[in-house]
Amino acid sequence: MQQVLDASTPDDWRRLDPVDTLYMDVAGGRVVIELAPAFAPLHADNIRTLVRSGYFDGLAIVRVQDNFVTQWGDPHAGDPGRARPLGAAKARLPPEFERNTGPDLPFTPLADGDVYAPEVGFSAGLPAARDSQAGTTWLAHCYGMVGAGRDDGVDTGNGAELYVVIGQAPRQLDRNIALVGRVVQGMELLAALPRGGGALGFHEAPEQRVPISSIRVAADLPHAERLPLEALRTDTATFAALVESRRNRRDDWYHRPAGAIDLCNVPLPVRMAPDAPAP
Amino acid sequence: MQQVLDASTPDDWRRLDPVDTLYMDVAGGRVVIELAPAFAPLHADNIRTLVRSGYFDGLAIVRVQDNFVTQWGDPHAGDPGRARPLGAAKARLPPEFERNTGPDLPFTPLADGDVYAPEVGFSAGLPAARDSQAGTTWLAHCYGMVGAGRDDGVDTGNGAELYVVIGQAPRQLDRNIALVGRVVQGMELLAALPRGGGALGFHEAPEQRVPISSIRVAADLPHAERLPLEALRTDTATFAALVESRRNRRDDWYHRPAGAIDLCNVPLPVRMAPDAPAP
Repeated sequence: MQQVLDASTPDDWRRLDPVDTLYMDVAGGRVVIELAPAFAPLHADNIRTLVRSGYFDGLAIVRVQDNFVTQWGDPHAGDPGRARPLGAAKARLPPEFERNTGPDLPFTPLADGDVYAPEVGFSAGLPAARDSQAGTTWLAHCYGMVGAGRDDGVDTGNGAELYVVIGQAPRQLDRNIALVGRVVQGMELLAALPRGGGALGFHEAPEQRVPISSIRVAADLPHAERLPLEALRTDTATFAALVESRRNRRDDWYHRPAGAIDLCNVPLPVRMAPDAPAP
Repeated sequence: MQQVLDASTPDDWRRLDPVDTLYMDVAGGRVVIELAPAFAPLHADNIRTLVRSGYFDGLAIVRVQDNFVTQWGDPHAGDPGRARPLGAAKARLPPEFERNTGPDLPFTPLADGDVYAPEVGFSAGLPAARDSQAGTTWLAHCYGMVGAGRDDGVDTGNGAELYVVIGQAPRQLDRNIALVGRVVQGMELLAALPRGGGALGFHEAPEQRVPISSIRVAADLPHAERLPLEALRTDTATFAALVESRRNRRDDWYHRPAGAIDLCNVPLPVRMAPDAPAP
């Protein structure tokens, strides 16, 4: 894989759009999230509104369930007397669980099939699935994908409560909840946390929660404070070569190359732009 | 799923064999591992020999690689001058990467297909795959599965260095390395550890390693010190009902049941025997 990346050209990479990039600062460091407005535009807008009002600052990671998700938001969200107001953000959003495929949506298919969907691949740099008969495409719950928690009603999510996948891909959630983006840096800060002792991995004692000092939209920061992150494009020959290098591992260690790969095992590399000044 | 388990009968459960059960005590608590002698009998024997000689006591968790594995053993294993001797245990073992299916091996197929293998299901309570044409069956690298590290040579594993899967199932490892069992309790103690900062997630500084106080074979402890753990049998109608309850989630929250399930998303429940005295 490193050989493939070393042979890549600048055109193989895309700079993250600062409007779609969130910096979440927690104990231990910074988590960078890329939003997916191609799939969840209303959620992305609402999350930006929340972030820009300072909604998340001082809130916390409230849930860490082993082999499932880490989740953050307002610990008092269910308590009308103590919940932080959403301000200008919407309390409910239409369920952006899938979208019409449409003629404009790029999609790079993966050849090896899938247990959960008729077809899988990559769209807008993210793991996705589609159904050509239904004409729909949706994001897939792979490791590192970020979604918007909801209650039973399909329109009860709003982005004020977010989760990230930290275990085996819970693909049964696909098309049941809105995925809004992906952690592109700092995943270990969310995956290595002590698991919550309560039901569903919620922390029972307030002091077990991990505080969020702030979340910011990169575009709202001075240029000098933005991270020059680039993601490998998923519609290039370089990406195809990377997938093939992972389908059939040729290192000396491998005795029998797999000859196939699961959607959620394909790496989606992110790097600091090589022409950027040192951070 | 809880309804299915509540309706189970005592015959749906099997008591873990103390000879195949390891207690690994680390900072924070106890990890329980069930060995898989049906698939890796030579590795299971060698691991028991190592455990009984006290080989692992005072060694450490040396590697935690995000979305991949946690690994433990001798930090000085590569250094002839400092490595702990293996004693009566063998330094090399034949590669128990797969076995002949044979007429006696139970196998409960899973209906939903697989990206990596012609057929998947459960054997001896573990996630497995098989190839009826080749006549072989092998264990699958799902979350919580434990394997024996090796160098490039296929016979260089011996069980002195063990790893557990802590992320998306790295199924490309199947048939490339010997899986020797599964963590049946305490998985969160291995999955929630800080990731190592060195290459491949190895810890660079000795003080970052997590010490192992001891590993014991349950059969070597007095009866009163053995945990009365039971695993749900995978060849029963109750297990089939559990799989179906996870293929098609019927809770109010689910808007669209998946209608399928990946091998590594099927839970393999373990409980304290209900008739056992309180620990």
